[in-house]
Amino acid sequence: MTKRIKSSISYKLFGFFSSLILSANVWAAAKPAESDIVSQLRDQAAKSTLPYDILESLTTEVGARMAGTPQDALAVKWAVDKFKKLGFDKVWTEPVTFDTWIRKHESASVTSPFQHELKITTLGFSIPTPESGIEAEVIHFDTIEDLIESPADSAKGKIVFISRKMERFRSGKGYGPAVKARNTGAVEAAKKGAVAVIIRSIGTDSHRLPHTGMMRYKEGVKQIPAAAMSNPDADLMERIFARKKPVKIKLRLDSHTGPKYTSHNVIGEMTGREFPDEKVVIGAHLDSWDLGTGAVDDGAGVAITMAAAKVIGDAKHRPKRTIRVVLFANEEQGLVGAKAYAAKHGGDLNNHVTGAESDFGAGKIYAFASRVAEDNLAVVSKMAKLMKPLGIEYLNNEAGPGPDLIPMYRLGMSVFSLRQDGTDYFDLHHTADDTLDKVEPENLAQNTAAYVVFAYIAANSEQKITRGVLKTH
Amino acid sequence: MTKRIKSSISYKLFGFFSSLILSANVWAAAKPAESDIVSQLRDQAAKSTLPYDILESLTTEVGARMAGTPQDALAVKWAVDKFKKLGFDKVWTEPVTFDTWIRKHESASVTSPFQHELKITTLGFSIPTPESGIEAEVIHFDTIEDLIESPADSAKGKIVFISRKMERFRSGKGYGPAVKARNTGAVEAAKKGAVAVIIRSIGTDSHRLPHTGMMRYKEGVKQIPAAAMSNPDADLMERIFARKKPVKIKLRLDSHTGPKYTSHNVIGEMTGREFPDEKVVIGAHLDSWDLGTGAVDDGAGVAITMAAAKVIGDAKHRPKRTIRVVLFANEEQGLVGAKAYAAKHGGDLNNHVTGAESDFGAGKIYAFASRVAEDNLAVVSKMAKLMKPLGIEYLNNEAGPGPDLIPMYRLGMSVFSLRQDGTDYFDLHHTADDTLDKVEPENLAQNTAAYVVFAYIAANSEQKITRGVLKTH
Repeated sequence: MTKRIKSSISYKLFGFFSSLILSANVWAAAKPAESDIVSQLRDQAAKSTLPYDILESLTTEVGARMAGTPQDALAVKWAVDKFKKLGFDKVWTEPVTFDTWIRKHESASVTSPFQHELKITTLGFSIPTPESGIEAEVIHFDTIEDLIESPADSAKGKIVFISRKMERFRSGKGYGPAVKARNTGAVEAAKKGAVAVIIRSIGTDSHRLPHTGMMRYKEGVKQIPAAAMSNPDADLMERIFARKKPVKIKLRLDSHTGPKYTSHNVIGEMTGREFPDEKVVIGAHLDSWDLGTGAVDDGAGVAITMAAAKVIGDAKHRPKRTIRVVLFANEEQGLVGAKAYAAKHGGDLNNHVTGAESDFGAGKIYAFASRVAEDNLAVVSKMAKLMKPLGIEYLNNEAGPGPDLIPMYRLGMSVFSLRQDGTDYFDLHHTADDTLDKVEPENLAQNTAAYVVFAYIAANSEQKITRGVLKTH
Repeated sequence: MTKRIKSSISYKLFGFFSSLILSANVWAAAKPAESDIVSQLRDQAAKSTLPYDILESLTTEVGARMAGTPQDALAVKWAVDKFKKLGFDKVWTEPVTFDTWIRKHESASVTSPFQHELKITTLGFSIPTPESGIEAEVIHFDTIEDLIESPADSAKGKIVFISRKMERFRSGKGYGPAVKARNTGAVEAAKKGAVAVIIRSIGTDSHRLPHTGMMRYKEGVKQIPAAAMSNPDADLMERIFARKKPVKIKLRLDSHTGPKYTSHNVIGEMTGREFPDEKVVIGAHLDSWDLGTGAVDDGAGVAITMAAAKVIGDAKHRPKRTIRVVLFANEEQGLVGAKAYAAKHGGDLNNHVTGAESDFGAGKIYAFASRVAEDNLAVVSKMAKLMKPLGIEYLNNEAGPGPDLIPMYRLGMSVFSLRQDGTDYFDLHHTADDTLDKVEPENLAQNTAAYVVFAYIAANSEQKITRGVLKTH
């Protein structure tokens, strides 16, 4: 009892007295209120260097880790080792099998009316050009919509160039409208008879570092090579076109598909105190594109969510439910790890109480949104109160899932969205410039603190969070 | 007389009345005061889009123009055409002959203890590696001084890596101390038995675009290949070295020297009204490195000085002396055009009253300095007064020459230095990122206005500017 009294005094000294008095639970009499526990963990996380250390380790010891490359296997090994070293209670991997694609060589130059080397990159899963390259006149479209609306055969025998600029927004909302050219440019250009397509990079920077990313072919439409050029090169192309002379480009891409490859989702858990089978899923994707070291896409998410779970796992008072960190394999080439996860765990949906993925870089979180049953909103209010000191506002109950939670969300899982400031994200996304120097350690720590709040409160709520029936809007 | 009176009224309307009254010169009675002429030209230049249009033309129609390449010849043709189109009174070229060097391939990767592709660039005039490349352990020195002070054979069989960071300053003063590693790294590394040297880029950015530039070999010291890596890659190397494990790099450089090449200094003049043989020389270098389009180094200088001379040449009241714009060949590989110019025109030193080169990018000018005879300082005061509205302060009479005026300065020519804000200059200098999008049109216009003030006042002064005897400090 002496110890209890001493604790009680000590809590009083820390201002926790009222929570003791009000507590109906005898056990809890020795335990601070949930909000005090979470505040303390949040503040600890907000000063932590752990997420930066994790990211430093991943980007230094592994670096680029494109799905299906030897670096993919290294990343999986790194993640397993890191989870274990951090003292996660359970660590395991789950296989994820997919087609592979390798970039070998890429070059392009303007050959007429002037001579310029262009900085380009092959889009993911593009076919190569013939070894000698393709040299052809270029036809310029401002947008993919203009290409679609152009006459049949408008691009016959030509290289299509689409120059639409992506707009910069904190929310990243410029991406959706712009990325259509990358996803469907090859198909739409081929429909008009083009021999290749080169788009302006889907990115907001002005550096000569082109942005890669996936493109898609379509059954029944001729496959043509597809590349993206850097923004300054696209500006140059527009200036050249302004001269109203025929423009020619020579393009040489060498890339090839490889055999099927099996990578792994890597999963680490901090076990819940009361309902160990019920889990809150946080996570990120472990793979990156090949050009950079995947610091912001998505090493940051890996570091933030691993560190958040570690902070919660090390807490004196763990939450009722388990915190599961899922590091998804091969997000970049089609959410392959996410789909494998849902295929394996969809039947356990009832135990996936909610989740949030961190996959939008390393900017500060400025807002969060939920997608939960109406009768869970009291729990969300608790979070909102604890998020506020981090500069984070609650938005609404209309959250969408992070990319790797889409399959589980579609099955009915509730999700949260912790919105990062993405103003600079698309300066780096899918480029060689996605490196550690772009990351502010204090931003990572703020993110980690927010994930601590979200995951702890969600995992510890009296009422189990569910998706429930959502109001329609 | 009607016409004279009409003019006089019109000047009065423009606020020039007082200068008319005070004029002691009958001819000048019809002519506004010099300071009014220059103010008006300055303000016109400060709004002009001409320098940006010139730079847009050079970077779009020519682009990269490394000395000795086909683009070098194109640039010379472009400059002759541009001078003529702008209506310069005299336009001619003077041959400049030099050794050539061509970059073909460059790649490097860390092979141990981790795997990373590195973004590197061969330094100018480096020898190639063997075709299969060089793979060797890397020895890390913080500075070139540390390398020099290390024991003989300290780098035996190894690749030397020098990681010193260049510091950012408005004046660019971080360049001098940092660039020593680029200039002499290969010699100092070879003296210690190294098989190659790779330096951190001499630049202040954090992008994966390495900075090229000249390196030198020394008679009697073994020649070894030399390259620079981007700043983010150098950061990565430092993090790898912090692991205290042996580090290996594989380096492959393919470059070769070519035959002698004859390029040209391109010169355009706006003839002076009274002393046409006496000239004020402004100019820039026409060549660039091969990686970017030479927008800030030194297309900006070309545009600024061509535009300034054009503004003066088009003025109703031209200055007494000639404005000569010299676009120097091959500055980058050793001031070759500058030396050729001095060899040809050194004997005419008496007619080169003074000069200033623009070769520090496209930032605003914030200060200027002179290097003239003491009894010319009244002329400098006039300039200072007219520079002030542009936000430009007079510094002192201790100016040094721009690089291409060094040979003439050494012969005794007086010089001015119009100091540009170089805070961001070394983010771009000698990289692929040296492109037009980095240039603010209004900054180019401000520079042009400053060159108008300098060149007009210097060319029009009663007293001919000379270097005179300088005070020692």
